[in-house]
Amino acid sequence: SVNPDLASERQTASFSVEKLTALLDGGAEKTRIRRAVVEAIESDPVFSRENQYFQTQNERYEAAVRKAVHLQKKMHELGWTENGSESKYIYRALSGDVAFLLHRVFMRSISVLGSDKQIAKWIPLATQLQVIGSYAQTELGHGTYLQGLETTAVFDIATQEFILNTPKISAMKWWPGDLGRSATHTVAFAQLYIHGKCYGIHPFIVQIRSLQDHSLCPGITAGDIGPKMNFEHIDNGYLLLKNVRVPRENMLSKFCEVRPDGTYVRQGSQKINYFTMTTVRISLIADEVLTPLMKACTIAIRYSAVRRQSKLKPGEQEAKILDYQTQQEKLLPQLAAAYAFHFINDYLQELFDRGYREIKRKNFDMLPELHALSSGFKALVTHHSTAAVEICLRACGGHGYSLLSGLPSLYTKILASCIYEGENTILLLQTARFLIKCFTAASAGHPVPPSVTYLAAVKPGKCPAKSKLDFFSPDIYTEAYQHVAVRLISSTASKLQDLIQSGVKKYDAWNQCTVQLVQAAKAHCHYITVKNFAETVEKLETKAGIQKIMKHLCDLFALHGIFSNTGAFLHDGYISAAQMDMVTASYLDLLAVIRKDAVPLVDAFDFTDKSLNSALGSYDGQVYQRLYEWAQKSPTNEMSPAYEKYLKPLLHNTLSKL
Amino acid sequence: SVNPDLASERQTASFSVEKLTALLDGGAEKTRIRRAVVEAIESDPVFSRENQYFQTQNERYEAAVRKAVHLQKKMHELGWTENGSESKYIYRALSGDVAFLLHRVFMRSISVLGSDKQIAKWIPLATQLQVIGSYAQTELGHGTYLQGLETTAVFDIATQEFILNTPKISAMKWWPGDLGRSATHTVAFAQLYIHGKCYGIHPFIVQIRSLQDHSLCPGITAGDIGPKMNFEHIDNGYLLLKNVRVPRENMLSKFCEVRPDGTYVRQGSQKINYFTMTTVRISLIADEVLTPLMKACTIAIRYSAVRRQSKLKPGEQEAKILDYQTQQEKLLPQLAAAYAFHFINDYLQELFDRGYREIKRKNFDMLPELHALSSGFKALVTHHSTAAVEICLRACGGHGYSLLSGLPSLYTKILASCIYEGENTILLLQTARFLIKCFTAASAGHPVPPSVTYLAAVKPGKCPAKSKLDFFSPDIYTEAYQHVAVRLISSTASKLQDLIQSGVKKYDAWNQCTVQLVQAAKAHCHYITVKNFAETVEKLETKAGIQKIMKHLCDLFALHGIFSNTGAFLHDGYISAAQMDMVTASYLDLLAVIRKDAVPLVDAFDFTDKSLNSALGSYDGQVYQRLYEWAQKSPTNEMSPAYEKYLKPLLHNTLSKL
Repeated sequence: SVNPDLASERQTASFSVEKLTALLDGGAEKTRIRRAVVEAIESDPVFSRENQYFQTQNERYEAAVRKAVHLQKKMHELGWTENGSESKYIYRALSGDVAFLLHRVFMRSISVLGSDKQIAKWIPLATQLQVIGSYAQTELGHGTYLQGLETTAVFDIATQEFILNTPKISAMKWWPGDLGRSATHTVAFAQLYIHGKCYGIHPFIVQIRSLQDHSLCPGITAGDIGPKMNFEHIDNGYLLLKNVRVPRENMLSKFCEVRPDGTYVRQGSQKINYFTMTTVRISLIADEVLTPLMKACTIAIRYSAVRRQSKLKPGEQEAKILDYQTQQEKLLPQLAAAYAFHFINDYLQELFDRGYREIKRKNFDMLPELHALSSGFKALVTHHSTAAVEICLRACGGHGYSLLSGLPSLYTKILASCIYEGENTILLLQTARFLIKCFTAASAGHPVPPSVTYLAAVKPGKCPAKSKLDFFSPDIYTEAYQHVAVRLISSTASKLQDLIQSGVKKYDAWNQCTVQLVQAAKAHCHYITVKNFAETVEKLETKAGIQKIMKHLCDLFALHGIFSNTGAFLHDGYISAAQMDMVTASYLDLLAVIRKDAVPLVDAFDFTDKSLNSALGSYDGQVYQRLYEWAQKSPTNEMSPAYEKYLKPLLHNTLSKL
Repeated sequence: SVNPDLASERQTASFSVEKLTALLDGGAEKTRIRRAVVEAIESDPVFSRENQYFQTQNERYEAAVRKAVHLQKKMHELGWTENGSESKYIYRALSGDVAFLLHRVFMRSISVLGSDKQIAKWIPLATQLQVIGSYAQTELGHGTYLQGLETTAVFDIATQEFILNTPKISAMKWWPGDLGRSATHTVAFAQLYIHGKCYGIHPFIVQIRSLQDHSLCPGITAGDIGPKMNFEHIDNGYLLLKNVRVPRENMLSKFCEVRPDGTYVRQGSQKINYFTMTTVRISLIADEVLTPLMKACTIAIRYSAVRRQSKLKPGEQEAKILDYQTQQEKLLPQLAAAYAFHFINDYLQELFDRGYREIKRKNFDMLPELHALSSGFKALVTHHSTAAVEICLRACGGHGYSLLSGLPSLYTKILASCIYEGENTILLLQTARFLIKCFTAASAGHPVPPSVTYLAAVKPGKCPAKSKLDFFSPDIYTEAYQHVAVRLISSTASKLQDLIQSGVKKYDAWNQCTVQLVQAAKAHCHYITVKNFAETVEKLETKAGIQKIMKHLCDLFALHGIFSNTGAFLHDGYISAAQMDMVTASYLDLLAVIRKDAVPLVDAFDFTDKSLNSALGSYDGQVYQRLYEWAQKSPTNEMSPAYEKYLKPLLHNTLSKL
C-alpha cells in the first residue's frame, strides 16, 4: 500500500506522467523496449543488488564478474546484440554494477587503432571473453598530460620485438579498471623508441596474465590499487613492466607502423582519435551522470513528501518537509537541472552524430567546436550534478547519510565523474582556449562555428524586464545569460591581451587569467544549456500539460542560475538591483508552483524500486518500515566478538553493584 | 628522505612554523603537552589505524571497543584525568576512532539532569565502564522537533513504575551511538503521561541488555542500523520498547519529579539545559570540523607541491600543480578558512566560558545571543568546512579519490557535522529569528546584545576604496561585510513586515522568507568571522613573521568571500563594478603571495603522519612509493574465487586460439 502522503501527491499531477516518460525516452516504443530490458534484468536473481550496501570490496568484485559473465550468456539467449535497440538500456538496468567496462574500452581501442589483421585476431576472442582486456594509459605520476607518460617501448630489430619498461615508480600504470585482478591482456600506452629516437606515445597489446592459470607473466607486476570512495566492484589496477617483450605485431598499427627494419611510418589521419576522446566525454553523461542525478532527485523528493517535521501552522499536524520553502529551494532546482541536462544531452548527442557523419566524409571542420563543447559540457554537467546529488543527500538529513538511502553511493559515484575522462578544470580551460580564439576571430570579422556566433553580435544594452513576470520570458533570461557569457569572455580576452602587451610572457599571462577563463567557459556552457532548454520547450506539443510544466522547469533552471550567481548579472548593470529583486520574487514564486508537481516529475523518470535500491525512495513511500527491515539484515547485527573479548570482563560483576 | 619538491617549499618560509604552531595551540607549553599525548597514543600499537581503510564495519567496531577499553586503562596508568590538561588532546590524537562517545553523553546527561542520588549511583559505574550507556532521543520519524517525539512513558501508581512504549514504527529510537551493540543502558526520552495527562518530554534511564550475558532485556528490541557513509566504528542503533517498566527513581529528576502519588513537580530552572545544547554545538567545532579541515588542507597542499602535471613554461619540466592559479584558487582559500575558523572558535569558546560563569551566577541574559551564535556558527563552520574538504579531495584528482589519500574519509565524516546536533538550515533559521528580533529592537532604539549592536548603527554610504591596495585594508572589507549583513537582515525584515501587513498569516510569511532569512544569518556569521580574524591579527606579535602571514590569510579569507559572492556586495552599489574588479585583482595577486608559504602554513598544524593516515599527505612527500606499498597490502590483492568460478572456464581454452 502506498503511503497516503505520497499517494496524494500523485492525484493532483498537472500533466500525464506516462507521456513525459515517453518524451524522456524519445518515444513510447523506446519506453516499451527499456521496460522490457529492465524487467528481464531485474527478474534474474543473478543481477540482484539487494545486499550491495553490506558487501565488502572483495564480494562486490566477485559479484560484478559473475554478472558480466552471466550477462554475456543472457544477451545471447535473448538475442540482444551489441548494436541492438536493447543494448543502450542494459547498463542502466544494471546500475553499472558489472565488470569488464574497461574490457570494452580495450575492444574499442583495438577496433579504432588496430589494423584489419589485429581486429580480426583480437575482437572475436574479446567478444567471447576468451581474453579479458584493460586499457593502461594513466600512470601513478601522469594523468591528463599524455606527453608526460614515462613508460617506454624500445624496438629491438634483432628479435622484432618491443621491450616495454616502466622505468620509475611514477611510470607505473595506475587506475585501469579490470586490470587489478581480471585482465589477461591490456592495451598499454608507451613512448616508442627506435634507434634511440623517441616517436611519442603509442598503444601496445601486452599479455599480463597466463591463460593457463592466471598467474602474472614474466616481467609483470600487477595488482589491485585498493579501496576507493566507490567502484568497489571494479578492480582498478597497477602494472609494472620490466623488460616485457611483445612482438612487433602487437603495436596497434592502423595509423602508425614500425617496419621490420625499424622504419617508422605514419599513415592516415589521427584526428579521428581525438574525436573518440570527445565522444566518450559526451557518452558518459547519460549513464554516469544523468541517471544518478535523476535517482537522487527521486529519492529526496519522495522522501520529502512523506517525512513530516515541525509545524508550519500552529495546531495542525507536523508538515511535510517538502512544504518548507528552504527544502523546495534545495531540491526543485536540482530537479530542473536534471531536465535541463537531459535536453542538453539530447542536443549534444545529435550534434556528435552529425559530426561523426561529417568526419566519415573526411570533413574535420567541426572537430574544434565538438572538442570544446564536449570538454565544457562534461565539466559543467558533472560539476552541477555532483553538487546536486550532495544537496539531495543532505536534504534528507540523517536518513540520507545511511547507505540504505542509496544517496551516499550515488554521491560517491557521481563525484568520480568530475575527475575521470579529463579533470574538470583542465577541460574548462580547453573550452576557454577555444572561446578566446573564436572571440578574437569574431571580433576581426572572421567566421566562427555555430555555437559561438553569438560572440560576433555583441550588443551593449540593458535587460528590458519591467516586472517580475517578465522574468518568465525565455527571451529575457536567455539574453541575460548570453550577455554574461560575452562579457566574461571579452573581459578575460582583454586582460590576457593587456598582460601580454605589458610584457608578460604568453604562458604566464594565460596562467594569470585561468581563474577567470574557467568562469567564462562555465558561463558559455550555462548559456547554451538555458537556450537549448527554452528552444526545446518551444517545440514541445502543448497536449497533456507537458509543455506547461517543462516551461516552469526551464524558467526555474534559468532563474535559479541567476539567483545563485547574481554578481555576474549585476556587475555591469545589465540587470539592475530592482530587476534582481524581481528575479528573486519570481524564482521563489515558481518554487511553490513546481512543488505541486514535484512527485509526478520524478515519477516520470520511471525508476523501479530495485534500480533505486533505496529505503527512502521507493514508489510506495513506506520509508520507516523499509529502513527497519533492511537494517535488521545488516551483518552488523551479528554478535560481535568484542563483547566476549572486551566488554564481558567489565560488565560481568556489575549486577551486584546495582 | 624528504621529496626535494617538498623540501624546497620549507626553505623559504617567511615565518617561524614552530611559533605559529604554538600560537594555534595557545602557547608553547600546550604544544608540549599535546605532543606528549600524541606520542603516548601513537606509540601504542593498540591505537594503530594502519589498516583502517581495509576494514569492514564489523572490524572497525571491534577495534573501536578495544581502543575505548584500553584507553581507560592507559589513562589510569599515565595519570591522565577527565579534567586534566591532557584530556583535550586525547580525542584528536585518536582521530576520533574510538567507541563510547555516546556513553559520555549518557554520563553528561545524568550529571546535568539527574538528582544527587542518581548521580551517586550511576556515574561511578559508568566511569568504570561497568555499565555502558547511550542517549536515545532521536526517533526514526523525529529529529529536530523534540515535541514531536512519540515514545511514551506512562506512570503506573500501583507499581511505582513508568511503562515505556514506542507505539509506532516512527517512534522507534534510531541513530544513538553505542546503542546498536554495546550499551547496557540508555537515557531514553519519552512523553511523560500521568493519569492520562501528557507532561512533555522527559529522560528515563532504561536498561536494555542483560549484565549477565548481554542479551536484550524483556520488551526490548534493539540492534544496529547498518552501514553509513562513515562512522563505521560506531554502532548507531535502534530501539523498540514494548511495555518496558522502569522504577520511578529512573526518571532523571533534578528539574522534574513524579511523586509516589503521581504529583508532577517542576523545580529549578531548565534554562541550563538549553545552554548545554548550545555548548555541544560549539564544542564539536574543534575536534569534528577544524581537525578534518586542517588535515585535508595539509594533505592537498603537500600533494600539490610534489605532483607535477603539464608544462607551465615551454621547455621546462612539468610544473608543480600548486603553481597553477586554478589550483591555488581551489586550495588557498580553504587554508585561509581553516585559520579563520580556528580564531572564531577561540572567540566562541571564550564567549561561552564567560556565559557559563554568568549562568552559574544565575544571570541568564546572555542565553539568547549564545544560542543564536552557537546555532549560526555551527552551521557556517560545518557548511564551509565540508565544502572545503570536498574541494581538497577533488583538487587531488584521481589519487584524492583513493581511500588511501585519507580525503574520502575526512569528507564523509565532516559531512555528517552538517546534519547532526541540529540540521544546518534549521539552525540558521534560529539565528535569523534572533537577528530579526534584534533588528526590530535596535530600530526602535532598544538595547541589543553586543554581537548585534552593529544593526543599530546602519549607515548608508558606499565603499570608499580607491585602488586595489585599499582592499588589503581590514576596515574596508570588514565594513563591506557589515553592510551586506545589515542590508540582508533589514530587507528580509521589511519583506516579512510587508507580507504580514498585506494579510498573510505570520507563519506563512515566515515560511515565504526563509530562503532569504538563511542568507541573512549566513551574512551575519560571515561578517563576525571576518571581523574577528582582522581583530585577532591586529593583536598578534609582529615578531617571527607571524602577524604578516596571518594578515595575508585574513585578507584572503575576506576577499575570497567577496569574490565568491559578488552579487551581495554589488546589489545596492555599495561596491561598484570598478571596485569589484579591484577586489578580483587583489584576490588573485594574494594567491601568488600566499602560495609561497602554503606548505609551512600546513606544517604549522603539526599533524603526524600517523594522524593524517594518508598516502598523499605525509611529511616527506613520498607519495608514489607510499601509494604503491599501501595498495599491495589491500585485501583486494588476495586471490579472488571469481577466477576459478567464472573466468577459468572461459579463458582456459583460449591458448590454442592465439
